[in-house]
Amino acid sequence: MARVMNFNPGPAALPLTALERARDELIDFRGSGMSIIEHSHRGKEYEAVHDEAIALTRELLSVSDNYHVLFLQGGASQQFAVVPMNLLPSGKSADYILTGGWSEKALEEAKLIGQTRVAASTGENGKYTRIPRKDELKLDPNAAYVHMTSNNTLFGTQWFEFPETGNVPLVADMSSDFMWRKFDVNRFALIYAGAQKNIGPSGIVLVIARKDIVEGGRKDIPKIFRYNTHADNRSLYNTPPTFSIYLVRNVLSWMKEQGGLSAMEKINREKGRLLYEAIDRHADYYRCPVATDSRSLMNVVFRLPTEALEEQFVGEAKKKGMVGLKGHRSVGGIRVSLYNAVSVESVKALTAFMDDFIRSNGAKS
Amino acid sequence: MARVMNFNPGPAALPLTALERARDELIDFRGSGMSIIEHSHRGKEYEAVHDEAIALTRELLSVSDNYHVLFLQGGASQQFAVVPMNLLPSGKSADYILTGGWSEKALEEAKLIGQTRVAASTGENGKYTRIPRKDELKLDPNAAYVHMTSNNTLFGTQWFEFPETGNVPLVADMSSDFMWRKFDVNRFALIYAGAQKNIGPSGIVLVIARKDIVEGGRKDIPKIFRYNTHADNRSLYNTPPTFSIYLVRNVLSWMKEQGGLSAMEKINREKGRLLYEAIDRHADYYRCPVATDSRSLMNVVFRLPTEALEEQFVGEAKKKGMVGLKGHRSVGGIRVSLYNAVSVESVKALTAFMDDFIRSNGAKS
Repeated sequence: MARVMNFNPGPAALPLTALERARDELIDFRGSGMSIIEHSHRGKEYEAVHDEAIALTRELLSVSDNYHVLFLQGGASQQFAVVPMNLLPSGKSADYILTGGWSEKALEEAKLIGQTRVAASTGENGKYTRIPRKDELKLDPNAAYVHMTSNNTLFGTQWFEFPETGNVPLVADMSSDFMWRKFDVNRFALIYAGAQKNIGPSGIVLVIARKDIVEGGRKDIPKIFRYNTHADNRSLYNTPPTFSIYLVRNVLSWMKEQGGLSAMEKINREKGRLLYEAIDRHADYYRCPVATDSRSLMNVVFRLPTEALEEQFVGEAKKKGMVGLKGHRSVGGIRVSLYNAVSVESVKALTAFMDDFIRSNGAKS
Repeated sequence: MARVMNFNPGPAALPLTALERARDELIDFRGSGMSIIEHSHRGKEYEAVHDEAIALTRELLSVSDNYHVLFLQGGASQQFAVVPMNLLPSGKSADYILTGGWSEKALEEAKLIGQTRVAASTGENGKYTRIPRKDELKLDPNAAYVHMTSNNTLFGTQWFEFPETGNVPLVADMSSDFMWRKFDVNRFALIYAGAQKNIGPSGIVLVIARKDIVEGGRKDIPKIFRYNTHADNRSLYNTPPTFSIYLVRNVLSWMKEQGGLSAMEKINREKGRLLYEAIDRHADYYRCPVATDSRSLMNVVFRLPTEALEEQFVGEAKKKGMVGLKGHRSVGGIRVSLYNAVSVESVKALTAFMDDFIRSNGAKS
């Protein structure tokens, strides 16, 4: 059938161009007589792809030479443990800013490794509906690092201005808003991001880490978990997930062709504007629980008057070729994920459907 | 160009059928209007693939209900650390049998976690040319486990009979000879295997672990590294590498169609027989350093009279469409990897070339 409008929260929509490129050379990669999946990770064909994926990441984000770009396995969930394993020595404490389920999970893993502290939490009554204000951050000036989650897929909140942490290294889980826009990498000591939202398939996590942080990491942990091991070996210490990195390369290459991150940002802001406007013009029917200044452009969440209407909404949308709209099972409602590969046209189709749905199913009052 | 004869050591040749299936549905998975890569790991389309991959593993190897089958990330290299993290409590020691570079690496990681002991080593003068004899194993009856590497890709040796360890749990890295034949899983407490040799792409590692071993694992390690976490969640605790698991499914499905592991074993034994016969009929020219009873059917290593001739051999073979024959950089020579997807015909072409090469380049004497 025709390609659907895919609003999945991740794994998520990928640019058709990147997929077609993969399909067209899946059996015979550039005349080599084998698939990229069958190439050795030590051969020149794969290494060119690997190096291009790293170079495109550096170029798109203007990553300075002061940082390593690593492609690792295990997803962001593994980084929840690997960050404190590397960066939290005994005798020090790490600060965690809680803005949702993912930051809670990151904290839980860190607690098993060392001393931690909650520097701020907006989890009032178990719901996270906003990003903390500057004056709410109670930072420990001696912390080993401050950990934050820059976007919250479950609750639909997003940081638009990053916190000031002075000399304390800032670590961010950017899985769900990595590379939707340009940002100043130099504000961070370490960034990690599962690829399966904005830039590729699941099974690969990008780490951008300042060189002094990597070199100063703990040496009493297994070699495979030291950032330094992977930095020293250009992420080829052990066999990398070659096809996943190849796909990330295809997506980054498409992003560059589209005009890079400034073009991505323009499109992503337009998509968010269209969708929040549709919500707000029917604010008595589509209720977005998120504080206006914390509303995520990546994951837009809202409720309908009843759960029955929400179910009907998801079902009718699916018939019109719009899928992936069901909210996370822990929070319910509707969630619309608007990652890079989701087009403005798809969002326009969705907002038109939202208008229609009210006409057919009555305003709340 | 036409598909080459791919003797790569891993990532390695995959069955064309499995790749074509992936290509044909890469843009539109079973009429869903999106790629399997874009499907949610919580959706019914992906979950069916996931469950089928697990079921096929169970079926092909006759894995009993007493074992978990897990699909994890990080490759065998990560398991080098994760095995002792789970299974080596303080106050206990683990036995390692050294038969090559990979078992040495496994031991090095374990040393960072707990007490270890070398139960046997065939690494005389830095070369491992054989599997230890039964009487050489000095096992600790109180060991937390015994670790072995069932096939050694660098040195071309392979275990054909597994050691008796009594009540001590036997743990095996089977990355390079997993599922080339049927074997008795019940002999092992835990097996791990990177997929990129016999059954799929890189970026996915299979773990088959006895339930009591999983449940008795240490709880003071990060949750993401506990086997129990993944067993409790059918390997869906965090986002799995969905496309990699899909590809493993395609390969296992092909293996089943071929007649399962007994058919695989027959073909693999035939390939090994053909190649070792070719070596042995020119034993003064092609020198296999491996003890006869330890010769691997997965990775066949041999030397030519000079390094210059080895280079010429690799170059001429490549012109005839045979690639991946260069030995590992740490040992040199020729290495021929004969994983499941390598056909008998490819091996016949190689042995014919070996005969020809001698005719053109003279016997040693």
